[in-house]
Amino acid sequence: MCADYTAPDYAARRGALRSLLVENGVDALLVTDLVNIRYLTGFTGSNAVVLVHSWDMRGAEDRTVIGTDGRYSAQVAEQVPDLQAEICRATARRVLELAGEWQLGRVGFESHVVTVDQHTAFQELRTGLQLVPTSGLVEQLRMVKDPYEVDQLSAACTAADKALATLLERGLLRPGRTEKQVARDLEWAMFEHGADAVSFETIVAAGAHSAIPHHRPTGAVLATGDFVKFDFGAVVNGYHSDMTRTLVLGAPAGWQREIYELVARSQRAGTEALHPGAKTSEVDAAARVIIEEAGYGPQFVHGLGHGVGLQIHEAPGVAKTSTGTLLAGVAVTVEPGVYLPGRGGVRIEDTLVVREAGPELLTRTSKDLIVVD
Amino acid sequence: MCADYTAPDYAARRGALRSLLVENGVDALLVTDLVNIRYLTGFTGSNAVVLVHSWDMRGAEDRTVIGTDGRYSAQVAEQVPDLQAEICRATARRVLELAGEWQLGRVGFESHVVTVDQHTAFQELRTGLQLVPTSGLVEQLRMVKDPYEVDQLSAACTAADKALATLLERGLLRPGRTEKQVARDLEWAMFEHGADAVSFETIVAAGAHSAIPHHRPTGAVLATGDFVKFDFGAVVNGYHSDMTRTLVLGAPAGWQREIYELVARSQRAGTEALHPGAKTSEVDAAARVIIEEAGYGPQFVHGLGHGVGLQIHEAPGVAKTSTGTLLAGVAVTVEPGVYLPGRGGVRIEDTLVVREAGPELLTRTSKDLIVVD
Repeated sequence: MCADYTAPDYAARRGALRSLLVENGVDALLVTDLVNIRYLTGFTGSNAVVLVHSWDMRGAEDRTVIGTDGRYSAQVAEQVPDLQAEICRATARRVLELAGEWQLGRVGFESHVVTVDQHTAFQELRTGLQLVPTSGLVEQLRMVKDPYEVDQLSAACTAADKALATLLERGLLRPGRTEKQVARDLEWAMFEHGADAVSFETIVAAGAHSAIPHHRPTGAVLATGDFVKFDFGAVVNGYHSDMTRTLVLGAPAGWQREIYELVARSQRAGTEALHPGAKTSEVDAAARVIIEEAGYGPQFVHGLGHGVGLQIHEAPGVAKTSTGTLLAGVAVTVEPGVYLPGRGGVRIEDTLVVREAGPELLTRTSKDLIVVD
Repeated sequence: MCADYTAPDYAARRGALRSLLVENGVDALLVTDLVNIRYLTGFTGSNAVVLVHSWDMRGAEDRTVIGTDGRYSAQVAEQVPDLQAEICRATARRVLELAGEWQLGRVGFESHVVTVDQHTAFQELRTGLQLVPTSGLVEQLRMVKDPYEVDQLSAACTAADKALATLLERGLLRPGRTEKQVARDLEWAMFEHGADAVSFETIVAAGAHSAIPHHRPTGAVLATGDFVKFDFGAVVNGYHSDMTRTLVLGAPAGWQREIYELVARSQRAGTEALHPGAKTSEVDAAARVIIEEAGYGPQFVHGLGHGVGLQIHEAPGVAKTSTGTLLAGVAVTVEPGVYLPGRGGVRIEDTLVVREAGPELLTRTSKDLIVVD
């Protein structure tokens, strides 16, 4: 029998969180981050809080509560039929008051999300609860993708792959067109291939602009001899793809071939370093050393990659200063770059899932230098 | 001579902030909110902090500093040529250390934005600074739009107006098509009419779905007799438009005419209540009383409106519990709704600017019930 990956198992995710709550010595966690709430419950509205009890509390799942406001009463009933819902204006306040009535003792809050003002307001409620800062608990769970999530990420990556292929097939990448026009066409092609949205503002950077790591498309006109750097992604069911490819219009110059091959080698080395148990800082180093040895270290101005999932940037970071260790099922990008101000730059980026048997590649567009004639 | 509205006057905006800093008794403000940073400097990257000195500090403008990381060194030089830039990894930390070296005494931080964890990290730096929570200072300035901003908002609203007209002209709203298809076509038309992006996920809600205030488009097929509710907007140069129109496919039923006329009357009353000096809670009440008197009060489940500008939702709120007072130049939405679960709902929304001579309407699509045959 095949497993059914058609729907996420939210109760299982909450179960995993309850174990973390036991480890962290809190009776419950007040979840206020909307992405974490989507992960734990499936709710996609713009206002909600969720209170998740630890395994140490009796009837933990039955007592889990989601609070939202009147705009979302129909939506919460449809998306979260398995939890009790509180419909009210001041949702965090109401749920904390409930926790107080239930005489929970130590209630964690997301101290990496809750603002100083919100925290002050929570304290002023005088619920008798002990509010305990906790940081990144749900994000820790979100790093490891379940099969449903890998399916969604894969669909998002495929939409992006197909869109770039469509752009090229239709001859829409050519001298005389502008960065903005090409970016729009690429986004439209992602929608044609099943994207619900774009992952972030599409980067199309031509010529000298390709040396700007995060360039916004302008009215600049593409010319023969230009590098054209695409960094873009699609969202499918909330999951984000992220891919960068750098193409060249017409025959590449020697310096273009040289830095392209260098970045491609670095990207392969970073990919090969992805395995369960690897330190993220070592993955960064494996790719970075190749660029440094070629003398372009100062021109690689950013980290190697980042986690990707319900957010375009999420845990873990993969950079020189990162401290984590990879696990099987973690989804990350590998994206080294070399940028030569005034001339041009190259970045090559894939989205991959860490596996025991070697990384699973989700973005499948060729990484050979694509020459557009 | 006409004023030149082609570029924002960032130095003037920082000057207005400096006066607020004097009033609030701080020597400088550490601005960490990226939208506020864009408002104060024009910088649009994804990582930055800005330190703005109060008028009480000598050379306040010359000492203003923007910090960002290496990905943005070219961009910050281009977008913010008038301020000194610090390029570093830990930007907030570096700028706070600078403030410490300069022996600033009381440094405000944005306590409605800074998380509990960030605040803890700031305190652990031991810079000798006194960190003072301040809330919404830049947002207070952002409420009143300058002529440049009104031009951008107006362009965004026009793109949305034209897109809806284009959708209808092309016959793309008709029975048999799905909510998702219509939403994509509307978004594409906004791009054709000059949008840089969409303001938020476009809402197209047909039939019973129109009773869900914030419905996400599905594969549901439009049918004759349906209400179709559109809530959508365009972004132009960072400024967001926001408009809702509810149309009907084929001849409207009696109950549809009734609630449409009711919501339209409420929307007119709310609009007429917009004037400098009006309390936002009174504006909400002026629209709400009409729906309440018709017996549909419980079916109007949200506030009347909200400020709009560099964010789709910004200050001021216009709701029952809002506490502010309107000023000339404030941009807000007016968007009453009545939702009948299982049957359908109506919302009508405009984006307007409060003026002495009466509100300036930026979304100009007709508010008569549009019947699509």
